[in-house]
Amino acid sequence: MVSSYFSDARRLLCPLSLWAKRCPNSGEMTPVGGKRVKKGILERLNSGEVVIGDGSFVFTLEKRGYVKAGLWTPEAAVEYPEAVRQLHMEYLRAGSNVMQTFTFFAGKDNLESKWKDVNEAACDLAREVTEKGDALVAGGISQTSLYKNQKNKLEIKEIFQQQLEVFTRKNVDFLIAEYFEYCEEAVWAVEVLKESGKPVAATMCIGPEGDMHNLTPGECAVRLVKAGASIVGVNCHFDPTISLKTVKLMKEGLEAARLKAHLMTQPLAYHTPDCGKQGFIDLPEFPFGLEPRVATRWDIQKYAREAYNLGVRYIGGCCGFEPYHIRAIAEELAPERGFLPEASEKHGSWGSGLSMHTKPWIRARARREYWESLPLASGRPYCPSMTKPDAWGVTKGTTELMQQKEATTDQQLNELFHKQKFKSSIA
Amino acid sequence: MVSSYFSDARRLLCPLSLWAKRCPNSGEMTPVGGKRVKKGILERLNSGEVVIGDGSFVFTLEKRGYVKAGLWTPEAAVEYPEAVRQLHMEYLRAGSNVMQTFTFFAGKDNLESKWKDVNEAACDLAREVTEKGDALVAGGISQTSLYKNQKNKLEIKEIFQQQLEVFTRKNVDFLIAEYFEYCEEAVWAVEVLKESGKPVAATMCIGPEGDMHNLTPGECAVRLVKAGASIVGVNCHFDPTISLKTVKLMKEGLEAARLKAHLMTQPLAYHTPDCGKQGFIDLPEFPFGLEPRVATRWDIQKYAREAYNLGVRYIGGCCGFEPYHIRAIAEELAPERGFLPEASEKHGSWGSGLSMHTKPWIRARARREYWESLPLASGRPYCPSMTKPDAWGVTKGTTELMQQKEATTDQQLNELFHKQKFKSSIA
Amino acid sequence: MVSSYFSDARRLLCPLSLWAKRCPNSGEMTPVGGKRVKKGILERLNSGEVVIGDGSFVFTLEKRGYVKAGLWTPEAAVEYPEAVRQLHMEYLRAGSNVMQTFTFFAGKDNLESKWKDVNEAACDLAREVTEKGDALVAGGISQTSLYKNQKNKLEIKEIFQQQLEVFTRKNVDFLIAEYFEYCEEAVWAVEVLKESGKPVAATMCIGPEGDMHNLTPGECAVRLVKAGASIVGVNCHFDPTISLKTVKLMKEGLEAARLKAHLMTQPLAYHTPDCGKQGFIDLPEFPFGLEPRVATRWDIQKYAREAYNLGVRYIGGCCGFEPYHIRAIAEELAPERGFLPEASEKHGSWGSGLSMHTKPWIRARARREYWESLPLASGRPYCPSMTKPDAWGVTKGTTELMQQKEATTDQQLNELFHKQKFKSSIA
Amino acid sequence: MVSSYFSDARRLLCPLSLWAKRCPNSGEMTPVGGKRVKKGILERLNSGEVVIGDGSFVFTLEKRGYVKAGLWTPEAAVEYPEAVRQLHMEYLRAGSNVMQTFTFFAGKDNLESKWKDVNEAACDLAREVTEKGDALVAGGISQTSLYKNQKNKLEIKEIFQQQLEVFTRKNVDFLIAEYFEYCEEAVWAVEVLKESGKPVAATMCIGPEGDMHNLTPGECAVRLVKAGASIVGVNCHFDPTISLKTVKLMKEGLEAARLKAHLMTQPLAYHTPDCGKQGFIDLPEFPFGLEPRVATRWDIQKYAREAYNLGVRYIGGCCGFEPYHIRAIAEELAPERGFLPEASEKHGSWGSGLSMHTKPWIRARARREYWESLPLASGRPYCPSMTKPDAWGVTKGTTELMQQKEATTDQQLNELFHKQKFKSSIA
Repeated sequence: MVSSYFSDARRLLCPLSLWAKRCPNSGEMTPVGGKRVKKGILERLNSGEVVIGDGSFVFTLEKRGYVKAGLWTPEAAVEYPEAVRQLHMEYLRAGSNVMQTFTFFAGKDNLESKWKDVNEAACDLAREVTEKGDALVAGGISQTSLYKNQKNKLEIKEIFQQQLEVFTRKNVDFLIAEYFEYCEEAVWAVEVLKESGKPVAATMCIGPEGDMHNLTPGECAVRLVKAGASIVGVNCHFDPTISLKTVKLMKEGLEAARLKAHLMTQPLAYHTPDCGKQGFIDLPEFPFGLEPRVATRWDIQKYAREAYNLGVRYIGGCCGFEPYHIRAIAEELAPERGFLPEASEKHGSWGSGLSMHTKPWIRARARREYWESLPLASGRPYCPSMTKPDAWGVTKGTTELMQQKEATTDQQLNELFHKQKFKSSIA
Repeated sequence: MVSSYFSDARRLLCPLSLWAKRCPNSGEMTPVGGKRVKKGILERLNSGEVVIGDGSFVFTLEKRGYVKAGLWTPEAAVEYPEAVRQLHMEYLRAGSNVMQTFTFFAGKDNLESKWKDVNEAACDLAREVTEKGDALVAGGISQTSLYKNQKNKLEIKEIFQQQLEVFTRKNVDFLIAEYFEYCEEAVWAVEVLKESGKPVAATMCIGPEGDMHNLTPGECAVRLVKAGASIVGVNCHFDPTISLKTVKLMKEGLEAARLKAHLMTQPLAYHTPDCGKQGFIDLPEFPFGLEPRVATRWDIQKYAREAYNLGVRYIGGCCGFEPYHIRAIAEELAPERGFLPEASEKHGSWGSGLSMHTKPWIRARARREYWESLPLASGRPYCPSMTKPDAWGVTKGTTELMQQKEATTDQQLNELFHKQKFKSSIA
Repeated sequence: MVSSYFSDARRLLCPLSLWAKRCPNSGEMTPVGGKRVKKGILERLNSGEVVIGDGSFVFTLEKRGYVKAGLWTPEAAVEYPEAVRQLHMEYLRAGSNVMQTFTFFAGKDNLESKWKDVNEAACDLAREVTEKGDALVAGGISQTSLYKNQKNKLEIKEIFQQQLEVFTRKNVDFLIAEYFEYCEEAVWAVEVLKESGKPVAATMCIGPEGDMHNLTPGECAVRLVKAGASIVGVNCHFDPTISLKTVKLMKEGLEAARLKAHLMTQPLAYHTPDCGKQGFIDLPEFPFGLEPRVATRWDIQKYAREAYNLGVRYIGGCCGFEPYHIRAIAEELAPERGFLPEASEKHGSWGSGLSMHTKPWIRARARREYWESLPLASGRPYCPSMTKPDAWGVTKGTTELMQQKEATTDQQLNELFHKQKFKSSIA
Repeated sequence: MVSSYFSDARRLLCPLSLWAKRCPNSGEMTPVGGKRVKKGILERLNSGEVVIGDGSFVFTLEKRGYVKAGLWTPEAAVEYPEAVRQLHMEYLRAGSNVMQTFTFFAGKDNLESKWKDVNEAACDLAREVTEKGDALVAGGISQTSLYKNQKNKLEIKEIFQQQLEVFTRKNVDFLIAEYFEYCEEAVWAVEVLKESGKPVAATMCIGPEGDMHNLTPGECAVRLVKAGASIVGVNCHFDPTISLKTVKLMKEGLEAARLKAHLMTQPLAYHTPDCGKQGFIDLPEFPFGLEPRVATRWDIQKYAREAYNLGVRYIGGCCGFEPYHIRAIAEELAPERGFLPEASEKHGSWGSGLSMHTKPWIRARARREYWESLPLASGRPYCPSMTKPDAWGVTKGTTELMQQKEATTDQQLNELFHKQKFKSSIA
């Protein structure tokens, strides 16, 4: 079925340059005064359309040389706009319908005097790229570095308010509160964003065990919807499989509470079967040894299908998701959406491009059956399949968790090094 | 030693914008007529300087959506110049001293009428970016799709000649013949390039077993040097460990023959302990399931150190090498070179940037000892460590290996699918 | 602490030949009429003593050539008594305090006309060996091949009754109902055994998910104790870690019901982290490819310690447990028991015997720290860490599950072969 | 072919009790004076018959509680004769045609005053069991603990001479010099044994890299045959695959030298793809963590077939080979030999016995195709596939390698512990 679909796939290609004219589901609305008007996020979701999110920014730009691991803050929007713009473009070509402003951890608590410039530049870059295709701009805020220790509601809401002020001025299309470990802080974020009158999505970086205060995913979803979110789900911290399990629990929680909301997932592109409650952060390989865990495009097609079957309609990715992963979502759901993304011009579905290879055993790989059932090797025979997450037992509000103003001193680091031992055992 | 070095590393940063003024080893020569003149490739190598190559183009741009797997040809230089330029910039920032023209498989045999435009555009893009830093432009040619079956020397040399004509006109700084499986064809390439009078480097995509005609690496090196190459080595097909083993054999071959040449390595960033003679091409995971094999930045620092210790001074990467891998070379060899690359501004050596992380167990990872000894997990408990390469026994000139003009027909593909069975066994 | 204990361990050795004279906890009672009387099973457990069970019979004797995989019935007690006796002796020397009669699956339903001879011979062999040391004879019955399909209570109880009649005549010391997948059938077994007046132990081959009718482990334990079992727990189907998890649930169930019973575990010596509800039976490797999963002696010492800490005092093993695994239990709990088993004469605790090896790097392994933290390699680089259990969805009473009287026909087998496909996937 | 063979396999069963009457290839000779005379080892091999060796003694009896790891000496022949006899019986039933006397490391250098009793008892046990079937007694000697350091030829030959004196008196059928790391010492052994006039076999515990003095396998074979060995090959230290590679080199060496000899292999039943020159001794898991490396019966059938195809006709096993592994050799080569071993009565070839299992998915495993292609899982997700052997660089005659008379002192051990560090790395 799908393969016959793709045999004729070329004619479904929807070049960005032509998107407004030809693409059947392109989100085009009746022109008003000669100007094209894109369908809003809720119009799309309400009509059952699939919305494809974007992928990784901080992790991808770290590897490209524009973001520093540790603080993970997005100064690059100001410092290297061409690098950020290029990444946006790649996601747009891959099929993304949303350009999130590159404003992760970009509140005043993390960026201090630079916060405003960064937020403004990020909005401009996202808008510039969305103009080239069928995508919307989403203003994004994330958890503060304050909540864990201080829980000062007013101060925290003030940070969100400041970012929202920029988003409003720049007239983003909708808003996303993402990467929240604590439901309470996420609810505050939604409350602030809701004041704008724009649609609000909210995703937490939690797994099936729920938030750091042990609220279940179902209960988190209920509270977020009651606070005003129209779209809820999860992002980051866990792999697609675990993230879909979590969203399923959210869905069931909403159904039990007779609430309605659209579902959204933006998981890692890293396999994390061995994660504990805090997800990949606690894996010993975080963040500089995650390479063997990267999902293939085929893993992601499977994720897209399963997300769709679960009823999720806003499907994207978080850390580790490269443009080709987003393209894999768009290719898997091309039958439902009716077209392929621009970047599929450079990709044969299920490896069909390999039919041009000179070596016959490579040509023999030009088919779905091959890639779908291939067990990948790690090429690392001295390494295990899983590791044991760190579990220092300090997840809740100890002073060790406070964001420091200065870099950790050598003395402090030595204490930590001493505390950390390689955990090995007869497994 | 190294760690005390890096505690003061910040002052070694060499911003690209200032490269000509401040950086001690920047390759600047006495100005002639007011114009800065960069040191040439042989001047650098003759004086013992480390030259850092660039990384992956076709594989990286495939993932970004601009190259199609199968033919792997570089039309993007014409179609999407901003994407190619951006990747060049990332390598420059990461520390590369060479921008290879994006002309892989770009002869008339593969690109037909488009070949000239692509070669010219690639030269212009490489030159444009080298102007922003201390890098040279290398014009690159690679094996033809003709040799395996026809071995028509004149026709093949004609293809190289055509590309050389463009490189000469665009005045590239030196020339690289790379990705040759057969020494004889590589020798022809060197002979053609040598006519230009520019320095010629030649790398073959072979392992310790030698070329497809069973010439040893040592013998290959000898023939290449005799043909006129000043720099010889390997690129692609094997991981850093195996590639260094091959280059060691080349070195020994040259010594035995009392020949002198500079050594060069541009290996894969994929672990390939299980490869056969033809390298990663034959792994069942090639090219869409290689993710678990990707090297970490720490793997690459180890590679850079070992390459340096072996006497290799032109150190770069091939498929799978992302900008952060190139940066890892530059960081490992910063003590020898005297400065860090621009992109290290966004990277703490050996994870030192993590000292800013809020979670103390992440801060405890801010040190060399941690990353150097961490056994990575694949996160794939249902997958093995190694796989068995395809070995169809048709490596030498069968008709099945001929480059087809048209896409393989369904009929032909079905025959191949039938021929290919999943190789499983009690291992 | 433990290591200082063992430095003086030699004097704790309790040769079997002297057991009645010297060993402090040897179970010796005041002689009555000049004859030694052993302490009964409940006396031992009530006084807090550790009772060490025996290990694998069917699996071990299959490998030695005396039991046939498939039916797994114990005709060897009649056919090859010297082989069965030898295995009993090895467990006795290893520290076992219980010799279970080799009567697994030995009801009339499986053995037909041979059942009586086998049960009698098994009793005699167990008694003969227990006379040589401080061990008791336990008559053992296991689930019938009838329950799954017919559930004829009278017929099933009749089978148990027949075996009990032999056990009573042979005067075994106590009784064990083991390897029950359904609590209801286990309760019937306990009810029958209870009539004898002898102490009754009951273990089910279930995991944390409970029995095949979805009764929780806690509920199973409660029903077994109410039916008359003095000792309850689990045997077979899962590895030590999972089995202890299950027994913990049983313990909590009993506490919640304010019932008292002794706890008992006899798990597999195979690692089964990937098992589903039916345990290792469903692993694709069952029963002829389990080798890589075999626990080391160090794994078993860890198990013994954890079982002890959980309050389990009857600690033994099931399939895969070889004599050296039982010895490992006895060595780990030697501080608590006050002596080492006979077979420790041929074993240096924690590898101390290696201090005699000629190669210094082997001598360097003569210590606990080494073995306790060594990550074992499988030596199988083409194999994964885990597999996916079969899950045919026919666990409850379909006709496919009926014990056949005749060997499956080729026709029937072909249908099964067709139904079974190798389950592979992008994991 | 083979499977149709086995469909009728039952009638090939050759019960030991009847061996002399019915079995076509039973080695029976024309009776002389009413007494059956068995065919000798060379008669068998010269006529092209397959001779099946026995399996592991020290490793297997260590696990059963009768041998101590470290010295690995065979006092059990005197102390626990019933345990040794039982193991001999199991190998006989499994199909072995040779009972090696249990005299490993049983020279005066290791056993001191006990050496004579042990050698005599071992001869008697082996003879007693061979009388029950079609097997020969082979007197076995192995390398001394003196050679490495002293190389006193006279003293070493004296040790061999003493054992030979016992073998001659007990009239063993032929002689085996096995487990030699140095060809020179093996040659001395052959020279001594040859004086008896009985056939001599010689196997070295070497891999493809050759002996500890860097003699190639081919050269070793040549020297052994020139010294008088009629049968040469390898035993111990490496897995079947590597051992066959080594024997192939021996075969080629003999052919090049125009010498003739029978070939023999008795490899480990442990997978050792990661071994260095000294084999499994140097693996970090030696000797108490080798469990995950144990070969399955199917691995061994593959080994038997490949050995046969290579021309090896004396096929047995060493450490790790249990009776069921020997049975696997006999089953694989049943078509060539014309009968199945006694123990196959308790084994269905290629799992055919599973056709009686109640669960249909287990019945579906009753076939060769299933077991032959099943990738086994280790069930150890925190462990790697391979480890790095110790390589202390003291293999040649340093004082650290001398056999100590007394147990290593704590002081000496601590120095070794300090020297040994866990070797971990980014693999």
